[in-house]
Amino acid sequence: MSTRNLTLMTDLYELTMMQGYFKEKANQTAVFDVFYRTNPSGNGFAIMAGLEQVIEYIKDLHFGEEEVDYLRSTGLFDEDFLDYLKNFKFSGDIYAIPEGTVVFPREPLVKVIAPIMEAQLVETAILNIINHQCLIATKTARVVHAARGDGIMEFGLRRAQGPDAGIYGARAAMIGGCIGTSNVLAGQLFDVPVKGTHAHSWIMSFPDELTAFRTYAKLYPTACILLVDTYDTLRSGVPNAIRVFKEMKEAGIPLKGYGIRLDSGDLAYLSKKARKMLDEAGFTDAIISASSDLDENLINSLKTQGAAINSWGVGTNMITSSDWPAFGGVYKLVALKDEATGQFIPKIKLSENSEKVTNPGNKTVYRIYGTDTGKMIADLIALTDEEYSASQPLLLFDPVDTWKKTHLAPGTYTIRELPVQVFDNGQCVYESPSVMEIRDYCQQELDTLWDEAKRLINPHRAHIDLSAKLYATKNSLLEAVDNMTHQQNL
Amino acid sequence: MSTRNLTLMTDLYELTMMQGYFKEKANQTAVFDVFYRTNPSGNGFAIMAGLEQVIEYIKDLHFGEEEVDYLRSTGLFDEDFLDYLKNFKFSGDIYAIPEGTVVFPREPLVKVIAPIMEAQLVETAILNIINHQCLIATKTARVVHAARGDGIMEFGLRRAQGPDAGIYGARAAMIGGCIGTSNVLAGQLFDVPVKGTHAHSWIMSFPDELTAFRTYAKLYPTACILLVDTYDTLRSGVPNAIRVFKEMKEAGIPLKGYGIRLDSGDLAYLSKKARKMLDEAGFTDAIISASSDLDENLINSLKTQGAAINSWGVGTNMITSSDWPAFGGVYKLVALKDEATGQFIPKIKLSENSEKVTNPGNKTVYRIYGTDTGKMIADLIALTDEEYSASQPLLLFDPVDTWKKTHLAPGTYTIRELPVQVFDNGQCVYESPSVMEIRDYCQQELDTLWDEAKRLINPHRAHIDLSAKLYATKNSLLEAVDNMTHQQNL
Repeated sequence: MSTRNLTLMTDLYELTMMQGYFKEKANQTAVFDVFYRTNPSGNGFAIMAGLEQVIEYIKDLHFGEEEVDYLRSTGLFDEDFLDYLKNFKFSGDIYAIPEGTVVFPREPLVKVIAPIMEAQLVETAILNIINHQCLIATKTARVVHAARGDGIMEFGLRRAQGPDAGIYGARAAMIGGCIGTSNVLAGQLFDVPVKGTHAHSWIMSFPDELTAFRTYAKLYPTACILLVDTYDTLRSGVPNAIRVFKEMKEAGIPLKGYGIRLDSGDLAYLSKKARKMLDEAGFTDAIISASSDLDENLINSLKTQGAAINSWGVGTNMITSSDWPAFGGVYKLVALKDEATGQFIPKIKLSENSEKVTNPGNKTVYRIYGTDTGKMIADLIALTDEEYSASQPLLLFDPVDTWKKTHLAPGTYTIRELPVQVFDNGQCVYESPSVMEIRDYCQQELDTLWDEAKRLINPHRAHIDLSAKLYATKNSLLEAVDNMTHQQNL
Repeated sequence: MSTRNLTLMTDLYELTMMQGYFKEKANQTAVFDVFYRTNPSGNGFAIMAGLEQVIEYIKDLHFGEEEVDYLRSTGLFDEDFLDYLKNFKFSGDIYAIPEGTVVFPREPLVKVIAPIMEAQLVETAILNIINHQCLIATKTARVVHAARGDGIMEFGLRRAQGPDAGIYGARAAMIGGCIGTSNVLAGQLFDVPVKGTHAHSWIMSFPDELTAFRTYAKLYPTACILLVDTYDTLRSGVPNAIRVFKEMKEAGIPLKGYGIRLDSGDLAYLSKKARKMLDEAGFTDAIISASSDLDENLINSLKTQGAAINSWGVGTNMITSSDWPAFGGVYKLVALKDEATGQFIPKIKLSENSEKVTNPGNKTVYRIYGTDTGKMIADLIALTDEEYSASQPLLLFDPVDTWKKTHLAPGTYTIRELPVQVFDNGQCVYESPSVMEIRDYCQQELDTLWDEAKRLINPHRAHIDLSAKLYATKNSLLEAVDNMTHQQNL
C-alpha cells in the first residue's frame, strides 16, 4: 500500500490490444477523447478535476523488471513486446481542459494524440482519475451551492472508497468549494486547510461531559467547538458547553471561532433551541456546526426551515457522491492519422444505444460569453483545423434540433478555447496551479453561469453545439458506416 | 501518488484528541469496536474484508520528519507531543473477524485495545479500509448470487473512485466470489486471475470489423472473445465473428474458451439471437459474455428472461456499490481499563437516534451452528470474560423482543468464536491467507446460510443476540447515564 508503480493499473485488454498494435501497426497515430454523457446528480454542469494526477501518472509510466516479469507470467505476451515495454515512455501529445473549469457532456475533457499502442495503454488510469475527481468536485459544488454562503467542511475520509478516494476526494472537494477538510494527509499533500475538533470518544473517556469539555477548552482555547450530543443535546450538552464558555470568558480567554457541533437528532429543531440557549447566555457569536449524513438536499431543506446552523461538516454523501457514485467518463477513438498526408481521418463508433454514438475527429471546445453580461452563452465543439474569431459573426445551431439557431454579431460575444496543451511529444509543458488557486478559478467559473444553470433540481440546460463542419463530418460518417454494414450483409 | 506514508491519513481531530490524551491520560487503556448498523443494498449479511490492508497500515505507522514538520506548521501541536510522535509505534492488541467471514450488524469486526491515544489515531484509516472492502465484497456476493453459477468478472477499474478503489475494490470483489478481474495491477499484487480481450477502439482502428476480428484471432487464438457491437451486433458483429470462427476451424486452430461479447443494446434479445446464429453455424460451445451497466438486479432479470449469456463482466455498479456506496462502519469507545484493578469498565454512547446507542464492554462474537444441518442458527455477542461450551445448554433471546427465546440442548449445536488475535502488544501475530484462499473460505461461509438468508430482496434476518450478561450491563449503563443527565440538570 505504501509504494507502488501504477503502470499496471490498467485493464488487461489495454495490454493485449497494445501488443496487437505493436505487431500490426506500431506507427499508427491515433486521437482519443475523454468525455462524459450525463451530468451527475441531475446537475446542470460538471467541474473538471484530476488533471494534476493524470500528469503525474503519465510522467511516471514505466515497466520495471517486476512488471515485465509479471506480464511474462501470464503467458499472453511475446518477448519482442516485453522488450519494447522495458524502454517504454509516453511520447505523445495531451490536451486538457484545466481543472476547476465548468464543463458539459460530450466535450473532450482530455485528448490524447499518440502512437495508438501508447494511447491505448493509458485509457484506464486516465478515466479512473478523471472520473473520480470530476465526480467529487461536481458533487461538492452542489453541496456548497445549497449552503448559500456557509462554509462546507469535507469530513468523509472514513467512508471514502479506500485511501485514494479519501485523499484525492478531499482534493476534488476543495476544488469544488469546500473551506477545509478533516483529512490531514490531504492537508499536507495539497496545502489546503485542515479542520476538526473532537469525537464522542473524547467525551466518553472522561468521568463526565463537563470535565471533558473543560479539558478540551483548556487544551484548545482557540476555535473551541464542543460536540454536544454524546448524552443529551439540550439537557446536558448545550448547558455544559455554555458553562465552559462562561468559565473561559470569566478567565479572560478570548472566545474566537468557538461554538458547538450537533451530530445527531433533528438538526432544525436542535439548532434553533441551541441558538436560543446560547444567545440568552450572551454567546450570540457562537458557531453552530452540524454533521450527520448531510447532503445538498438536506442542507437546502434545513436552510429553508431556518435551521440556526452556520457551518457544515459533510461526509459520506459528498465523498462518495452517494446518489450518483460514478461519473461515467469514457475514452473513445475519434481519429487515425494518415501517415502519408499527415491528415487526421475522423472515426465514429455506432451503438445500439444512439446516445453512445461518438463525435468524430480531432476536436477542441470554445466557450462563448456575452460581452454585456460576462455570462456563458454556449459552448462550441469544433474541429481543430477550423478558425474562430470574435470579430466575425457566429452562427450556433442545436445539434439535435438543427432549426434552433442563434446568430451572434461581432462585438456581442467573446470566445475562449478551453483545452490547453499538457504534453508535447511526451514532455510535460504545463504546470498545475495549486489546489487553492484552482478553487478560486472554479469560483470564477461558477460566476459565469446564470443562477438558473446552478439550480439543484431541473437546472437550465446549457447549449453545447457542434460546428457546422463537425456536424457535416459526423453525418457523412454515419451514412458511410450504415452503407458498409448493409453491403457486408448483402 | 507513487510513494506515500499513510500515517497522516487520519482526521485532524484524531490528532488533536491524541495530544489531549497524551497530556491528560497517556496511560489510559481503551477498547474500541468497529461495527456497522445496516447491511448494505438490503442484503441479509455482509462479507468481512480489508483486514490484510489494516495490518499493513498498523505495521507501517510512523511519523517521519516531514510528517512532524507538517504537524508543527499547523500551530496546533506542542513540542513534547511532536517528540513523542517521532518515536511512535503502535503498541496495542487488535482482534478481528477473518476476511471472507459472513458478518452481521453490531458485531465487533475489529477490536482495538491500546493506550487511548494510539487507539484514537488509527480510527479513520481502519474505518476507511474496512468500510471500503466490506462494501465491495458484499455487493459482489450479491452479483455472484444473481448469476446462478455463471462466472462474474470484475471490470470496474475505470469507474472506481480513484486508484485504490479500483485496486482494493478488485481484491474485495475476488473475495466476494468473482472469477477474475480486468485490473492487471490487482492481478499482480494479489495473485488473482486477470481477464479481458479488446475494446471498440481495436475494431475502429482497422478498415473494417472483419479485418479487426481476423487480426485479433491470429494474435490470440486461445480464449478469443470478439466484441460484436461496434457497428451493428446482429447484421455485422455476430456474422463476422462466425466467419472468423469458421476460418479458425478450417485452419485447424482449436477453439477453446472462445465466443463473443455484447456491450450495448437489449442483452436478452441480442443474446438469444446471437445464440441461435452461433448454434446454427455449429458453434454451440461459443461463450456469450455480456457487459453494459450490469448489477445483480439486471443479471437476475436477464437470467429470468432466459438470456443466453453465460459470462458476465460487471463494472461501475459493483466497483462503486452504486445503490449503496458506503458501508457505514463506525469505531466506538466501548470500555476503559481501570489500571488499579485491571478490569475493563464498560462505556456507552447514547444518541438522539436510538439505533446509534452502542453495545458496551470488551466483547467477542460466537457463531452457533445446528449439528444436524451445519447451518448457522444465530450469533451471540458476549463479554470476553464469559465462557461458552457446546456441552452446556444454551439460552438465546432477542435483544429487542426479549420474550423471544430459544433453548439449545447440548449436542444439538456447535459454537465457534469468530474473532482472532491479530496484534499482541504491537506485534503482528496473524498471517493473512492469500486472496484466493479467502475467496474459497467465503464460499464455505456462504454455504452455512440458508437460501432464505441469501435472497436479494427482503432476505430472512439472522438472529444476532446479546448474552444475558451483556444485556444486563447495557441496561444498567443506560439507567446510570439517564440518572447522571437528570442530576446535572436539577
